Amino acid sequence: MLGSHADLRVGAGDDCAVCRIPKLGLDQVFTTDPIIEGVHFQSLENPERIGNKAVGRVLSDIAAMGAVPQWMLVNVVAPPTLEFQILEKVYTGMGALCERFGAPIIGGDVARGEKLELHVFGTGLLPQGSALLRSGAVEGDAILVTGPLGGSFSSGHHLDFVPRVDEGVFLRETGWVNAMMDLSDGLATDLRHILNQSGVGAALYSEQIPVNGSVEAALFDGEDFELLLMASDQNVKKLQELWRQRFSRELPVIGRIEGSVGDVRLDGGFIESKAFEHFSR
Amino acid sequence: MLGSHADLRVGAGDDCAVCRIPKLGLDQVFTTDPIIEGVHFQSLENPERIGNKAVGRVLSDIAAMGAVPQWMLVNVVAPPTLEFQILEKVYTGMGALCERFGAPIIGGDVARGEKLELHVFGTGLLPQGSALLRSGAVEGDAILVTGPLGGSFSSGHHLDFVPRVDEGVFLRETGWVNAMMDLSDGLATDLRHILNQSGVGAALYSEQIPVNGSVEAALFDGEDFELLLMASDQNVKKLQELWRQRFSRELPVIGRIEGSVGDVRLDGGFIESKAFEHFSR
Repeated sequence: MLGSHADLRVGAGDDCAVCRIPKLGLDQVFTTDPIIEGVHFQSLENPERIGNKAVGRVLSDIAAMGAVPQWMLVNVVAPPTLEFQILEKVYTGMGALCERFGAPIIGGDVARGEKLELHVFGTGLLPQGSALLRSGAVEGDAILVTGPLGGSFSSGHHLDFVPRVDEGVFLRETGWVNAMMDLSDGLATDLRHILNQSGVGAALYSEQIPVNGSVEAALFDGEDFELLLMASDQNVKKLQELWRQRFSRELPVIGRIEGSVGDVRLDGGFIESKAFEHFSR
Repeated sequence: MLGSHADLRVGAGDDCAVCRIPKLGLDQVFTTDPIIEGVHFQSLENPERIGNKAVGRVLSDIAAMGAVPQWMLVNVVAPPTLEFQILEKVYTGMGALCERFGAPIIGGDVARGEKLELHVFGTGLLPQGSALLRSGAVEGDAILVTGPLGGSFSSGHHLDFVPRVDEGVFLRETGWVNAMMDLSDGLATDLRHILNQSGVGAALYSEQIPVNGSVEAALFDGEDFELLLMASDQNVKKLQELWRQRFSRELPVIGRIEGSVGDVRLDGGFIESKAFEHFSR
């Protein structure tokens, strides 16, 4: 039959849901993210950047599986008083990022509401069984990160970031990555998702974490939209070398998978989670 | 490559976007619909029914293509003051309808906002090239409708309706349907979409339109979520007979494709559009 439940491989709890496309050797990934005025952005001064962020968050989720972006749909909720030119610029920002990664906006709807909201739905494709999940980290794995963390709100990076789509596909294709996710809620919080789903612990080395500002900012600020990944220790040097050849920058090791389930140690001491609660923002 | 633009067969302007899944002989359809407190429903007294409506609208769009529902994702925006029990009942209503049609909710997100909103995204599958579009109506076609129209808001049908998924698949499989859409904005408005996209006109016969209340209600109330379809005149009697065998009810002919592009005549006289504007509701 078309689309049975048996084709659902990974449901809620990872960056995307993963569904088998039978007989084709492919899996399809699905994700959705809302961004809301006053919650995820504060003013309408930079409408193109708001559009970039809305689409970028979804592309970042797709990147975190190692998938190739495919299709996007967008629901817009807008106040009746919103100037059409503002909305047009939001679409310009969304369209530019979609075009860059070859994932056109193929549908959506517009409705009236009190605040501007963008609900972006996205799909992606990858070879079957190859999605990089949060549950794949193994004792002894190296922990790596694709770029500097922290200060995203003050620098504007949370609006301007480029999702790590090319990097995600590259990392998946090496075959050396055991687990991956994108960093949206801060390293300390997001790492814990991987640890809990993989049933492992982690040790981080503060001097090796690439930071914009302090280590605390890197751990807790959030919205970095870099990829966090675990790879077998024996492949790390090869992985870093191929990475440098491809992207002309570093892929630093920031820690190691070890210790009790869910524990995060920083330079030997425990750190507490400051969970980023959607409802309390 | 995975998911190129060339695979997009139908974009915005139909009930769903239609994308080719290369090499598999299938097309995948995509749609999304928001429902918002104060716009699409007035109070939270019937949370299960609000959930039914949110998912039902999307399943109705999928049905309108003749597709088999596949996957659903839901973004929920909720005020911090909303009781958890209310939200749980909304999910119960959504889940019941998803289960009935074999399309599980595989993802989504929750965010804070001032009004309750449900943004449902759905996909479906069907054999390649078989989607029933708005652009396929041909001069001389009979116009048919799957059930009674009008009075949806006063009767509560707009919350309780069952999307015509089984009917849509049946109609597509006959091979006799040239064009189809679901009726959400009222017969007069929705028919015009088909006429404009097909480059044809229509004559309706008021005595043959199945109504809940007046013919005017059938034409203008909206939110009926029945299917409106066009079939070659020569196949109509066979179509109606197979339909009665399968569904034990009538599939009435309510008019005919004829006349100038975009014109809608009722018993020989022209009727005007009362366009249902999303922004003016």
